[in-house]
Amino acid sequence: MHIIKKAMEETKMSQGAGMARRWRSACGCVGIDVHCHVAPSQFPSPPGGGVVAGWPSMTPAEACHATVVIDQKPYRTISDACWVAERRIEEMDRAGIAVQALSPMPELFGYWIVVGAARDLVRHVNDVIADMVRHGGGRFVGFGGLPMQDLDLAIAELHRVVVELGFRGVEIGSNINGVPIGDPRFHPFFAEVERLGVAVFVHAVRPAGMDRLVGPAPLQQVLAYPSDVGFAVASVITGGLLAKFPELRIAFSHGGGTFASLLPRLEQGRQVFAAIGDSMPARPSEVARKLYVDGLVFDRDMLRRVVSVFGEDRVMIGTDYPFNFRESDPISRIAEAYDDEDLREALVFRNALNFLGLDEETCST
Amino acid sequence: MHIIKKAMEETKMSQGAGMARRWRSACGCVGIDVHCHVAPSQFPSPPGGGVVAGWPSMTPAEACHATVVIDQKPYRTISDACWVAERRIEEMDRAGIAVQALSPMPELFGYWIVVGAARDLVRHVNDVIADMVRHGGGRFVGFGGLPMQDLDLAIAELHRVVVELGFRGVEIGSNINGVPIGDPRFHPFFAEVERLGVAVFVHAVRPAGMDRLVGPAPLQQVLAYPSDVGFAVASVITGGLLAKFPELRIAFSHGGGTFASLLPRLEQGRQVFAAIGDSMPARPSEVARKLYVDGLVFDRDMLRRVVSVFGEDRVMIGTDYPFNFRESDPISRIAEAYDDEDLREALVFRNALNFLGLDEETCST
Repeated sequence: MHIIKKAMEETKMSQGAGMARRWRSACGCVGIDVHCHVAPSQFPSPPGGGVVAGWPSMTPAEACHATVVIDQKPYRTISDACWVAERRIEEMDRAGIAVQALSPMPELFGYWIVVGAARDLVRHVNDVIADMVRHGGGRFVGFGGLPMQDLDLAIAELHRVVVELGFRGVEIGSNINGVPIGDPRFHPFFAEVERLGVAVFVHAVRPAGMDRLVGPAPLQQVLAYPSDVGFAVASVITGGLLAKFPELRIAFSHGGGTFASLLPRLEQGRQVFAAIGDSMPARPSEVARKLYVDGLVFDRDMLRRVVSVFGEDRVMIGTDYPFNFRESDPISRIAEAYDDEDLREALVFRNALNFLGLDEETCST
Repeated sequence: MHIIKKAMEETKMSQGAGMARRWRSACGCVGIDVHCHVAPSQFPSPPGGGVVAGWPSMTPAEACHATVVIDQKPYRTISDACWVAERRIEEMDRAGIAVQALSPMPELFGYWIVVGAARDLVRHVNDVIADMVRHGGGRFVGFGGLPMQDLDLAIAELHRVVVELGFRGVEIGSNINGVPIGDPRFHPFFAEVERLGVAVFVHAVRPAGMDRLVGPAPLQQVLAYPSDVGFAVASVITGGLLAKFPELRIAFSHGGGTFASLLPRLEQGRQVFAAIGDSMPARPSEVARKLYVDGLVFDRDMLRRVVSVFGEDRVMIGTDYPFNFRESDPISRIAEAYDDEDLREALVFRNALNFLGLDEETCST
């Protein structure tokens, strides 16, 4: 208990910014990062030998980088931290992160790829993640991708990653080819997730509102991603997912996106519109506290808002490591927002332990 | 000065809930509501005598109500407070609202109606608003609708409502047939608005993300409206509208929608992505403070978040009167959130005076 306070005392440091960096010398990494991504260094040829729309390949880029190419176009140039465990661990030590939950880069979900090929792609990515977990000396847990456009195949791969590969959870999109993940058609999938007792991490992908952006392409990630996540959180609440699967452990990326702004209006709308009230027996503000989110919001006050909406026992570290648009010092961000040691611990690792179904020993070495 | 404090002293009341109601007896209405709607009691036949897709008509409903019918389908059943000035003033007295800025019910924007007919529809609605302003004893100002799908016609109607009808501003959609209002194609319109020195109120309409909703139809208003407004605010900032038209007074409905959640990520994205940084010389958190928003967020903490994002001099009362899904006691909501008298006054009326270009005498009677 009070791991953070102890680490701070040992290094005779003051609270606030820089805390995580100083922990490095104390070798007291405690953080758990539930939002960080993996991409393989190579992709096999698509099945059948022909061209498969959406199938990725890799082209070498400048030192230690490679470019993911999709449909003859460069999608993103990424560093070898995407696939080299040692590189990641060095940076985790610097940031005070004990454990990363490795999940696929969302463009590798392949929901839009013809389904047989998508399954092969996802299996390849999951096998790469399994290999990193295996050689990571306990510093990684696995979150697998699933071909969610075909629920039978998705459930089969869910079983494979949990039973054969030992993953702690799966990563799915905020929508599956435009259908928000709170839609009842996904209930058979969530039933199986609940039965297996693993975690679900929901990440933005192919977001709504692309025609509402004015400016350069990265505004997709900056503005449309969190909006789509906000819709996904709302869809889970208005669709009653947690009422149907009360043991489900489900987390949302980017602090639940815009949901922190949507909640009060949803709360009021439920009281005003009989149709909404009839379809939502529980208050959305109560249901929100059964969900998990990461705290990837880049701002102290916004982090506090997210914690006030989802609860002190529901927010976890998320960094988007190793991409450039990431939180590089998540523990200092938490320390900036809160003085309370117990709450800091909850946000730094305890909530993530609960979400992942791990016990405290795993990260208290 | 200190009108609120004075009214409170006169009525020997304590702070907090119920404040606005007690002002009624003191006859000291001070609030200015920039977000409330008008619909006419009747619509003329569409021009040309035939059928025009999207053209509305009215059908009587139960006592004092009527149903707006569009394309043979009931769109919304609304009360006669939409068109009867006396009814509105009674309720304004109860809520402590001195002045309402009357704007069209957004479904009457008619952006999707063939353009000649749309112009006729908008003119009819604006004439109804002008009539209410004329007979409102100083309790109303006008915000006209414009056929924004044709900027020449929109600018012509802008001139008519400002010069002939004496309106203080116009109401436009968060998007015009899917194009966000920060798109540069609307610059000629904003140039003319700035030149005339009138206010622009941006309201959600036909929002993005409709395919992301799981549940009954009113979730459009509840969830997709604020999301579309969030995109609209962002589009104005990423598109550099205020840099081009620095004197523009522009306000957004529903507390700027989801923008309060998007801002920190936009701020960080601008620092990380060169393309965004290059296209946005000013920090979005600074530009946000040049915009106005209403405080229609139904929650004390969310109101505080909105004020912290847009600034204490930028948030105004908005109620969505006379629709059911409205803020019925906006002044108490403000009093609940803030103890400071000066800030309360700013939010209750002073910011709105600035936005509308009115002087204080108008509402200090």
